[in-house]
Amino acid sequence: MNLHSAVLAPERQIESTSLRDRLVATRALSAALAKPLSDEDQVVQVMDDASPTKWHLAHTTWFFEAFLLKRFLADYRVFDERFEYCFNSYYESVGARHPRPKRGLLTRPAAQEVRAYREFVDAALDRLFDTALTPEAAELIELGINHEQQHQELLLTDILSLFAAEPLKPAYRETAPGVAVGEAAALSWLPFDGGIFELGHDGKGFAYDNEGPRHEGLIGPFKLANRCVTKAEWMEFIADGGYATPTLWLADGWNIVRGQDWGAPLYWEEAEGGAAQMSLNGYRPIDPAAPVTHVSYYEADAFARWAGYRLPTEFEWEMAAGSVPLEGRTLGSGHLQPMAAGPGAGLKQMIGDVWEWTGSAYLPYPGFRAAPGAVGEYNGKFMCNQFVLRGGSCATPEGHIRRTYRNFFYPHQRWQFTGLRLAQDA
Amino acid sequence: MNLHSAVLAPERQIESTSLRDRLVATRALSAALAKPLSDEDQVVQVMDDASPTKWHLAHTTWFFEAFLLKRFLADYRVFDERFEYCFNSYYESVGARHPRPKRGLLTRPAAQEVRAYREFVDAALDRLFDTALTPEAAELIELGINHEQQHQELLLTDILSLFAAEPLKPAYRETAPGVAVGEAAALSWLPFDGGIFELGHDGKGFAYDNEGPRHEGLIGPFKLANRCVTKAEWMEFIADGGYATPTLWLADGWNIVRGQDWGAPLYWEEAEGGAAQMSLNGYRPIDPAAPVTHVSYYEADAFARWAGYRLPTEFEWEMAAGSVPLEGRTLGSGHLQPMAAGPGAGLKQMIGDVWEWTGSAYLPYPGFRAAPGAVGEYNGKFMCNQFVLRGGSCATPEGHIRRTYRNFFYPHQRWQFTGLRLAQDA
Amino acid sequence: MNLHSAVLAPERQIESTSLRDRLVATRALSAALAKPLSDEDQVVQVMDDASPTKWHLAHTTWFFEAFLLKRFLADYRVFDERFEYCFNSYYESVGARHPRPKRGLLTRPAAQEVRAYREFVDAALDRLFDTALTPEAAELIELGINHEQQHQELLLTDILSLFAAEPLKPAYRETAPGVAVGEAAALSWLPFDGGIFELGHDGKGFAYDNEGPRHEGLIGPFKLANRCVTKAEWMEFIADGGYATPTLWLADGWNIVRGQDWGAPLYWEEAEGGAAQMSLNGYRPIDPAAPVTHVSYYEADAFARWAGYRLPTEFEWEMAAGSVPLEGRTLGSGHLQPMAAGPGAGLKQMIGDVWEWTGSAYLPYPGFRAAPGAVGEYNGKFMCNQFVLRGGSCATPEGHIRRTYRNFFYPHQRWQFTGLRLAQDA
Amino acid sequence: MNLHSAVLAPERQIESTSLRDRLVATRALSAALAKPLSDEDQVVQVMDDASPTKWHLAHTTWFFEAFLLKRFLADYRVFDERFEYCFNSYYESVGARHPRPKRGLLTRPAAQEVRAYREFVDAALDRLFDTALTPEAAELIELGINHEQQHQELLLTDILSLFAAEPLKPAYRETAPGVAVGEAAALSWLPFDGGIFELGHDGKGFAYDNEGPRHEGLIGPFKLANRCVTKAEWMEFIADGGYATPTLWLADGWNIVRGQDWGAPLYWEEAEGGAAQMSLNGYRPIDPAAPVTHVSYYEADAFARWAGYRLPTEFEWEMAAGSVPLEGRTLGSGHLQPMAAGPGAGLKQMIGDVWEWTGSAYLPYPGFRAAPGAVGEYNGKFMCNQFVLRGGSCATPEGHIRRTYRNFFYPHQRWQFTGLRLAQDA
Repeated sequence: MNLHSAVLAPERQIESTSLRDRLVATRALSAALAKPLSDEDQVVQVMDDASPTKWHLAHTTWFFEAFLLKRFLADYRVFDERFEYCFNSYYESVGARHPRPKRGLLTRPAAQEVRAYREFVDAALDRLFDTALTPEAAELIELGINHEQQHQELLLTDILSLFAAEPLKPAYRETAPGVAVGEAAALSWLPFDGGIFELGHDGKGFAYDNEGPRHEGLIGPFKLANRCVTKAEWMEFIADGGYATPTLWLADGWNIVRGQDWGAPLYWEEAEGGAAQMSLNGYRPIDPAAPVTHVSYYEADAFARWAGYRLPTEFEWEMAAGSVPLEGRTLGSGHLQPMAAGPGAGLKQMIGDVWEWTGSAYLPYPGFRAAPGAVGEYNGKFMCNQFVLRGGSCATPEGHIRRTYRNFFYPHQRWQFTGLRLAQDA
Repeated sequence: MNLHSAVLAPERQIESTSLRDRLVATRALSAALAKPLSDEDQVVQVMDDASPTKWHLAHTTWFFEAFLLKRFLADYRVFDERFEYCFNSYYESVGARHPRPKRGLLTRPAAQEVRAYREFVDAALDRLFDTALTPEAAELIELGINHEQQHQELLLTDILSLFAAEPLKPAYRETAPGVAVGEAAALSWLPFDGGIFELGHDGKGFAYDNEGPRHEGLIGPFKLANRCVTKAEWMEFIADGGYATPTLWLADGWNIVRGQDWGAPLYWEEAEGGAAQMSLNGYRPIDPAAPVTHVSYYEADAFARWAGYRLPTEFEWEMAAGSVPLEGRTLGSGHLQPMAAGPGAGLKQMIGDVWEWTGSAYLPYPGFRAAPGAVGEYNGKFMCNQFVLRGGSCATPEGHIRRTYRNFFYPHQRWQFTGLRLAQDA
Repeated sequence: MNLHSAVLAPERQIESTSLRDRLVATRALSAALAKPLSDEDQVVQVMDDASPTKWHLAHTTWFFEAFLLKRFLADYRVFDERFEYCFNSYYESVGARHPRPKRGLLTRPAAQEVRAYREFVDAALDRLFDTALTPEAAELIELGINHEQQHQELLLTDILSLFAAEPLKPAYRETAPGVAVGEAAALSWLPFDGGIFELGHDGKGFAYDNEGPRHEGLIGPFKLANRCVTKAEWMEFIADGGYATPTLWLADGWNIVRGQDWGAPLYWEEAEGGAAQMSLNGYRPIDPAAPVTHVSYYEADAFARWAGYRLPTEFEWEMAAGSVPLEGRTLGSGHLQPMAAGPGAGLKQMIGDVWEWTGSAYLPYPGFRAAPGAVGEYNGKFMCNQFVLRGGSCATPEGHIRRTYRNFFYPHQRWQFTGLRLAQDA
Repeated sequence: MNLHSAVLAPERQIESTSLRDRLVATRALSAALAKPLSDEDQVVQVMDDASPTKWHLAHTTWFFEAFLLKRFLADYRVFDERFEYCFNSYYESVGARHPRPKRGLLTRPAAQEVRAYREFVDAALDRLFDTALTPEAAELIELGINHEQQHQELLLTDILSLFAAEPLKPAYRETAPGVAVGEAAALSWLPFDGGIFELGHDGKGFAYDNEGPRHEGLIGPFKLANRCVTKAEWMEFIADGGYATPTLWLADGWNIVRGQDWGAPLYWEEAEGGAAQMSLNGYRPIDPAAPVTHVSYYEADAFARWAGYRLPTEFEWEMAAGSVPLEGRTLGSGHLQPMAAGPGAGLKQMIGDVWEWTGSAYLPYPGFRAAPGAVGEYNGKFMCNQFVLRGGSCATPEGHIRRTYRNFFYPHQRWQFTGLRLAQDA
C-alpha cells in the first residue's frame, strides 16, 4: 500500500464510510506513512517537542489497547505489560510513564516488534467489531481514529524536523508530483458583517471536547485576506529588516529572536541561487508563491504588525469558514508541502496547505468541562500559554479537519506547517 | 513624612486634586516607601523578576526626564547622561540599556546620588509647571504618575521577595496597625444576568491604553463569590492533596509543581504552632480568615477546579465591579497585607486586598493599537502568555486602581499580592 | 564470525602476528561486536559522552581513510565526501564536523551504508598492503588499529549506557559463560621499595605519544592491595553512610553527590532480593566478590579515605605492574564484566577486569611534545581536568593494554568499567 | 587609618612582630581595605565565585569566633547565633549554611552591624590574649590571620570584578602612586640544574597544611624566564590569531574560548586610542611593559605553546625561588596592579605582581593528611580539578606569601591577578 492509495478521499466520502472501515483505513495509513522510513529513521528523537516515528506507531496503538480493548473486549490480554510505561504519553490518571524527552532512547521494543504490536491490536479491534459495540466503545473508537490522525500529522512534521537536522538532509519522499512553482492570487479582502454568531461544534458527528460547548459570540465587522501570506511577501518582510526591528515584536518573541538568532522561518536558509528550505520533498528552492510555513506565532504577529494588519481571531476565522466548502489541499492531495493559492476570486486556502495562527489564546469555551477519567486529559489541561490555529495543513489527514477544529501550539513553536492569513477591522 | 501621611486618600478626593499636587504627592510617596530601607536594602536584586528599590526610584525619575523634560522643558540638561543606559527598563525605541538581570549590580550611582537625581528632576518638573503645560505634556505627566504608582507596588513586593530570601527575615515594617486575626464572611454567591455589555475604559480621565477601546462584549449569566478565597480554604485544599493531584492542574502548572516542589503559596511555611508566612509586617502566623495571597494562576486555577468552580473572566469581573463602590483596602489603608473580608452581605473585596486572577488571557481589545513611539511599548508588547488580574491589592496606591484596570502576570508568577475569587455559570 | 572467535588471543601471540593480520582481525572484531545489535540499537546516542555504535563503526573507518588512504594510496577516492563532516570526532586541524551531542541524529547514512563503507575502506587497505608500505604508513596503520581498539571498548560501554537507560533493560548478550558468583581473595598488601625508577614507554613497539618520553621518577616506599575493591566492600561503605558523609569527599565530588543524588555506583539499584546492576549480560544480581565498577574518581577517592587508605599514583601502579605478567581478564576472556579475583597469593587483577583510578592527574610527562598535524590532537589536548586510570578492563581488546598505558577520564565519569585498588605509604 | 599605613612591612619585619600585634594589624587592614567602599558596594555579589565585601568582613570574624573564641575564651557569648548560618563558608563539619551563590542577598545584618561584630570579636580576642594562650589557640590565631589575609586579596579581586561589571566603571582608588608606564627587562633565561630536591614547607613557622609534608622531588634541568610575560607580548599573541587557533589550546579551554567568545584577558577591551583594562585604579590604558594579568590557565598554557615554551611545574618554581630574596611588589607596595619588571639581570617578579600559573595540578603531597575536624576542610577537599599558582600578587598582603605557598584555582578562572612565566627544558 503506498502513500497515495492509503490516503483517504475527502470528508464527504468519509462520512458515508463505516466506523470499521475508517478505523482500518486510518490504521493502514499510519503504516503507510512509516513505510519510506528505515527502522533507524523511526527510532530517533530530534528534540523534546518531537517524537520518534516508532513511538507514534506504538502510542496510537496503546491508546486503543488502554482505553478500549482492556475495557470492552472480554478476555483481551495486553501484548506486553511494559508497553504502557513506554508508550503512555501524558495521561497522569493512567500512571507512571517514560519521560517525554527520552522517547528516542527506546531502541527496544524494536520497530519490528512495534509492527507486530500494531497487528496484534488490529486483530483485537477486528474481534471487537464482531461483538455488539456499545455507544461508549464506538465513541472511543472514533476518538482513537482522530487521535491517530493527529499523530499522523505529527509523524510527518517530526520526521521533517529530524531530516532537517541531519547533515545529509534526506528527503522523506524523493520526487513530488505537482511541486512546480505556482502563482499566488493577488491579495484582496473579503468583508464580513458583525453580529452574534453561534460558535463551536454543534455535537453532530465527532468533535473534540475543546470544540464545545457551542455558544454565542459577538463579532465585529472585519475583513479577511483571500489567501495565506506567501513566501514572496515574507521575503519583503525580511528585506525590510523585520527580524531586526524590536518594535514589531511582542517582548517574549523579541527575546527569542535575539537569543536564538532567528532571521527567517524554520528550515529556511540562504543558499546558492536564492533561499532554499528543507521540506518533506527534500532540500529545495523556495517557491515564492507558496504560503510561508514553519513560522511561530511571534513571527506571524510581527509580520501582521509590519504589514499594518492583524491576525484574525479564531471566531472570525470560524465564521468566515462557514462560507466556503470544507475542502483543500490536505494530506490526501499528496503535495506534502503548501502550494500556491492559484488564481481566481474568493476565499482560498481556508482548509489545508498551512495551519493559520489566530490571535486567540487557547482557552476553554464558556461552560467547558473536561470529560471524567483519563480521556479528559486529552485537551483541557493544555488550555494555557498556547495559541489557536485553524484550518489544517498539507499534512492533515483527510476527514480530520473541521471548521470548528482548534489546533494549538506554543507561540514559539515552528516545526508544524504553520502559516498565517491577515485580517483587519472593517 | 511617614508612610501614612504620604499615602493619598481615596480616588474621589484625588480626582479633585490638581495634577501638580498629585505629582508632588506621588513623588513623595515613593521616597516615603523607601524610607524604612537602608541603602544596602535598596541595591540588591533578589531575582530577575524583581528590581532593587534604588532602581525603582531612579527609573521612575528617568521616565519623567526621558519622556517629558527633555522634550518639553526648554534648556533642560539631563542630570547624568549615563543614567539612561542604567535606568531604561525595556524601551527598545530609546536605545541600549543595562540588562534586567543585572540591575542589582548597580552599586553606583549610590542611593544618595539617586535621591539627588530625584530632587533634581522634581525641581525641573516644578519649573515645567510654571510654564504653559501643553495637553500632551499634561498627558505624559499623568502617565508618569501612574507609571510611578505601578512601581510603588513593585517596590513593595520586590522588597518583600528580598526580605523573604534573607536568613534573618527582616520586616519592612516592625509593627502593623490592625493586623489582628479577623473573620471572613461565609461564602455566598451573587448572581449576574447575561447580555451585551460595554467593556473597557470610556476615555474620561486617565487610563492605560490597554483598557481600551471600549467595546461591546457578550456575557452569559453567572454567579460570583461574595469574597476572595481565604487561607483557611486553601489549607483544606492542601490537606486534601491539592498539590499532589495532577488531574487538578494545567499541564504547564503541574510541571512547575513537581519541578519546583510547590506545596503551598509562596512565603508560606510549616512553622511551630502552625503555618506562618513572610509578609511586609514580618514573618507571622497565618490569619485563616484573610484572603490567600502569593498564589500563581496555576494554583488559582487548580483550586477552582478542586472546589468545583472556575475563575471569572475579566469581563464578568468588570461588569460585576460596576455594582459596588470603587473602594477597598489598598495601600492607603496601611495594612500592607490582605485582610479578612468581614461580616455582612454583598460583594466584598473587589477593590484592594489581593489582585484577583481571572481566566482571561492578556490580549488586545478589539481595535487596540499601541501609541506611536516609545510610550507605545508600555503595554502592548506584553500581550502574550500572561493572564489578567483585576481589582488592585493592599499595595496598590490610592487613586491608581480602576474598574477597567488590567494588570497582567505570567501564570507561574507568585511574588505579587495575587489571590482569587470563585465564579460559576448561572 | 562470532564474538569469541573474533576476539584475538593475548598479547604475546599478537606480537608475532603481522600488521596486516592484526588490522584484519581488528576490523573484523568491530563488526562482530556490533553484530548482536539491531540497526536501531546502533543509531541512538544516550548522552553527550557516549556515541552510537554506528558512529564508532564509521569514525574508525574514516580515521583510516583520512589519515592513511588519502595520503598513501594512489588514486584512492573517498567513499562519500560528506562523511568527513559526519564522522570526524575532534580533529580541529581537519575541519568542521558534526557536533558531538548530535551524533545520535545521524539516521543517515544508514547502518547498512556504514557497513558498505567499512568494506570499501577495508578493500582499499588491502590494496595498500599490496604496495610497498612506508614506515610512516605502517605507523599510522598501527595507530589506526589501536584507535579502533579504543573505540571497541567505548562501543561496549556506550551500548551498556544506552541499554541501562531503556525501560526494557535489554541485555547485550543473553547468556554469559562463567558469570557465576565467585569468591575474592582476602585483602592483603604487597610492599614495594622506593627509589628512582624509569617510567613511561621505552619506544619499543607501539605506544601512544602520551606514554612517553620515558623518564626517571622518584617513588617512595609503598604498599599496594593484592586485588581491586569488591562490591561487598562497597556495600559496607554504603551501609556506613559513605554517600552521606561530606567530610569523606572532595568538594567537587560532594556537589555532585548531592546534586545528582548519588547513593551507589552507576547502574546499581536496590531490587527485590538485594542489589542488582545492569551489565552487558543484562540486569542481574550483584556478585559481592567481583570488583566494584562504574564508580567515579570522586567515589574511588572517598572510598579510599573512608577505608583509611589512598589511591596509588600512576607511577606506583606502573612500577608494581612490572612484577606481574601482562595478562588478565580483558575482552578476550569473554566475561564482559569484571570477575572475582579468586584465591591465591600475589598481585591480582592488575590487567583487565576494571580500569583502576589512580590519584594522578592526567598531565604531560616531562619533555612531552604532541606530534605535528592532526594526529597530534590524539592525546595532548586532553591533558587537563582528568585523572589517569591504569590496567585495562573486561572490555579492553586483547593486545591493546600495556603497563605504560594511560587511560584518562573526568573525575565525575562513571560509564566506563572503572574501579579501584587501594594503596598506602609503607 | 589609611591603606598605606595599614599595610604591614615585608616578611622579615613581620616575623619579629608579636602574634598579638600581627592579629591587630591584620584585623585593621581588612577594615582599611573596605573603607573606600560604600555600604552599597559592600553588599553586592557579582558572580558565584566572588563574595561581597561585607561577607568577607563578617566571615573572617566568624572564623575567629567559631574556631577560637567559642573553644578557648571562657564565658564567651556569640555576638549573634544566626551569623553562623550566614557566614560559614564551606565547613560541612560545622553545619548548615547560607548558599554561596546567595551571599549577595544579605542586606541584613547591615554593614554597620558587621562592623560592630568585628569590634565585638576584636575585643574578645584582646581578652583572650590576656589569658594564658595555649599552643593550640596560638596556632589557630595564626591560621585565622592567614585566613583573613587570603580574604583580603579576595576582597580586592571581588570588588574589582563588581566594579568592572558596572556601567559607570568606578575606581576602587581614584589616583594611584607610581602607576606610570614602565619598561620591562628583555626576556632572558636562567638555567637550573636538575637533581633531587627537598620541596614543601619544613615546618618552621606557619604554613598551610597543603604545603607539606616536606619531601624529596626529582627535577630535571630546566630554564626559567627572568620575568613574567608582558602585555606587549600578549598583544602579539592576539595579533597572531592566538584566540582563533584551536591547535594551541587544550580541548576544554577551546570550548570556553568559543562558548564565551574570549579574545583577550578579562577586563581587557578595545578602546579609543588602544586597549584599556579595568583595574583597581579604574579603567585605564594598558601598560605594555606590565605583566599580563587576569588570564586563565587555558590562556597561559596556550600562550606558552604558541611561544614555543611551557609553564614551569610548581617544583621548578619553588626550587628557583630559593635563589632570590622573598620580596616583591605585594599589597604593601601600594600599586594595586602589576608593574613592569624593570631593567637589570637576574630572576625578577617571583614574588608579587601576579600569581604565576604552573603546569602542576593541585594534588596532595606524598603523605598529606588533612587535619582532623573542621579546620581540616581548609585545603584538602579542593585537591582536584585545579592548578597551582605560585608567588603572590599585587593584592597579596605583606607577610602572607611563602616560597612554598600553593595557591590554586580552576583553569577557567580569571578574576584573580593571574599571569605567567615561561619555562623550558634545559
